[in-house]
Amino acid sequence: MAAEVICVGTELLLGDILNSNSQYLAKELAALGVPHFYQTVVGDNIDRVHQAIEIGATRSSILIFTGGLGPTPDDLTTESIASYFNTPLVEHPEVIADIERKYTQRGREMTMSNRKQSLQPQGAAILPNPLGTAPGMIWQPRAGLTIFTFPGVPQEMYRMWRDTAVPFLKTQGYGQNPIYSRSLRFFGVAESALAEKVNHLFDSNNPTVAPYAGKGEVRLRISARAANETAAKSLIEPIAREIQQIAGDNYFGSDDDTLASVVGQLLMARGQTLAVAESCTGGGLGQMLTDTPGSSSYFMGGIISYANRIKIDLLGVNAEDLARAGAVSETVAMQMAAGVKAKLGTDWGVSITGVAGPGGGTEAKPVGLVYIGIARPDGEVEGIKYQLGSQQERGLIRQVSASQTLDLLRRRLGRG
Amino acid sequence: MAAEVICVGTELLLGDILNSNSQYLAKELAALGVPHFYQTVVGDNIDRVHQAIEIGATRSSILIFTGGLGPTPDDLTTESIASYFNTPLVEHPEVIADIERKYTQRGREMTMSNRKQSLQPQGAAILPNPLGTAPGMIWQPRAGLTIFTFPGVPQEMYRMWRDTAVPFLKTQGYGQNPIYSRSLRFFGVAESALAEKVNHLFDSNNPTVAPYAGKGEVRLRISARAANETAAKSLIEPIAREIQQIAGDNYFGSDDDTLASVVGQLLMARGQTLAVAESCTGGGLGQMLTDTPGSSSYFMGGIISYANRIKIDLLGVNAEDLARAGAVSETVAMQMAAGVKAKLGTDWGVSITGVAGPGGGTEAKPVGLVYIGIARPDGEVEGIKYQLGSQQERGLIRQVSASQTLDLLRRRLGRG
Repeated sequence: MAAEVICVGTELLLGDILNSNSQYLAKELAALGVPHFYQTVVGDNIDRVHQAIEIGATRSSILIFTGGLGPTPDDLTTESIASYFNTPLVEHPEVIADIERKYTQRGREMTMSNRKQSLQPQGAAILPNPLGTAPGMIWQPRAGLTIFTFPGVPQEMYRMWRDTAVPFLKTQGYGQNPIYSRSLRFFGVAESALAEKVNHLFDSNNPTVAPYAGKGEVRLRISARAANETAAKSLIEPIAREIQQIAGDNYFGSDDDTLASVVGQLLMARGQTLAVAESCTGGGLGQMLTDTPGSSSYFMGGIISYANRIKIDLLGVNAEDLARAGAVSETVAMQMAAGVKAKLGTDWGVSITGVAGPGGGTEAKPVGLVYIGIARPDGEVEGIKYQLGSQQERGLIRQVSASQTLDLLRRRLGRG
Repeated sequence: MAAEVICVGTELLLGDILNSNSQYLAKELAALGVPHFYQTVVGDNIDRVHQAIEIGATRSSILIFTGGLGPTPDDLTTESIASYFNTPLVEHPEVIADIERKYTQRGREMTMSNRKQSLQPQGAAILPNPLGTAPGMIWQPRAGLTIFTFPGVPQEMYRMWRDTAVPFLKTQGYGQNPIYSRSLRFFGVAESALAEKVNHLFDSNNPTVAPYAGKGEVRLRISARAANETAAKSLIEPIAREIQQIAGDNYFGSDDDTLASVVGQLLMARGQTLAVAESCTGGGLGQMLTDTPGSSSYFMGGIISYANRIKIDLLGVNAEDLARAGAVSETVAMQMAAGVKAKLGTDWGVSITGVAGPGGGTEAKPVGLVYIGIARPDGEVEGIKYQLGSQQERGLIRQVSASQTLDLLRRRLGRG
């Protein structure tokens, strides 16, 4: 029978937060092959949670709740579930001890309201929360109905889901004919242009191919239903190879690969190092590179030269060139890249300088204009101009500039 | 009576896309003062759409559908609604003409399947779609029940909502007593501890007060229903003042304020400047600071000293101290902060060095251990130790470390 996701939280009904938990659980259920036909959102209100249970229990055999497990009075998911099934709540001293330990570790004192988080319906099993104070539960209030509760904080929920619900669902026979999928990732090509080239694959049934567009990036997801991973791979592989051939070097990686991790792999393979000089991104490129664990083996660091004075003093940008061409110019980008490479003694130096907006744009240098500098091991330096739509948001311009820089570097590193 | 959002799309149940339409509509309904207690997601399946209507029509007077209006066979929202109410579908030639015109404009030919998009239940009024080919509808299939349909493409839906649904809802008397709200933002206090102190406000009806927890941050949202903004403000103000008094300097701002923007305001008020030295955050602190437009007036830049050699060469950290105490130590954090302040010639210098994980932790220096350095204008330098749970993810440790640094700086800047 089917699973139903029930997200509890008035903040969802007010639009204060995006319901990313639903998407996560939907993906996970699909991967396990658990049928999933409905999702519901209700506010922090006992009667409405009761109604959601009433409806859900008639059409689904697994109810997965997220949210409303906190210590405050409006957190009432657990007590609503217990009262719907006329079951008393029982205090779990081991949960209180765990919460107390976590508070002590952080140098804080546990409050009385946290005791509430140790209450679970009689007969329910605790799902421990390694990352936070709110435990979840798994409970069968009656034959044929299983209820899970998870906290609303996504990181806590993901971890608990993987640690507890996935193994349980596997014991119930799910995950036998799961869907395996692989995402191929592309940069430097529009979704519609790529889609047109692989159009003939969209009608395929097993595996299926579907396109998604992200921030400057495009993905194609290949999904196969098969008895096991080997069988799925043999369905996915030929399609993946065909797509990679069509896409050429716009393809940069698959699944968890990122532009930053791929750049890292290429640098490691060459035994080379990298430094960054950032103006408009203010550190965002360095942050992307260091998102990858182990990046310290090739990423040495960088200089955030937000003020022009720092470009001159620390990166050795020529003051006259800067005054003449402006901070957002090819020559300054090139001098920044060369400067950071020299200063940090790395093989490669890259730089970004641009107009991120919303203010500061002119007719000659509109918002979205970005120059990227790349200083190579052989001493050559390139400057690349890049124009993003001037209607774009500051955050997006900064993020896509950093991604674009990584993509340019990737293409140069990939040339062997 | 209440509105209910019903999103139709198997892609939502597979987790292929994030349900941002729900959040958009939730915000809009809240702003108009339309009560909104449930959201439902169903797949592209006539029986299940029927069931969603059956349930929704008993508890809500306005059903807002998004998705399933396209030309393909799995788009069946309109026909499901019509068949539930035993109403025939009627072809609208003006819609066909409009679709044809749009295709011609794009140099394409209309396909037969697009004719389907001109079908609406008898008696329904067309909601034109200026950005795409799928029109929506507004229909009262029986007294006391209004149904809206919108395409699932967010930009098309937003535009049609504003152009058609908002004016309609206003003629129905909504938007007269909208909800105004203000979020108060706190750092350095647990949600449960703050909630206990303002517990007496949670029972208030107008305005209401509700807590939310984010990444290291806590918010209290005060929402008032009033005839106009001035009236709402006079309801919100006294509660906001009371909460701020209770929270003391854990309160840092409201609504769009961020720790970074508040630090910026405080620096500007003092006419002082700031530089950062980052190890484990790799540029993330600089990025946070430069998220705020205009930050160039106080943020000069920084040094990303990811490798130890850079800490010594560029920040002047003492090589012996580094070898003895390790890169993640109070003395190195202090020397990094003092070093970047001196190197960039700023009034303040702050630094972060820590174990972000997942590898690299030891018993003495576990994952989550972070040292923050603050070099002050008067030449004094502080080192602050901070321990985040060692089970936390790398990304979260990095983000909360940067926020924690901004919070420490904010408190020092606020002391006048």
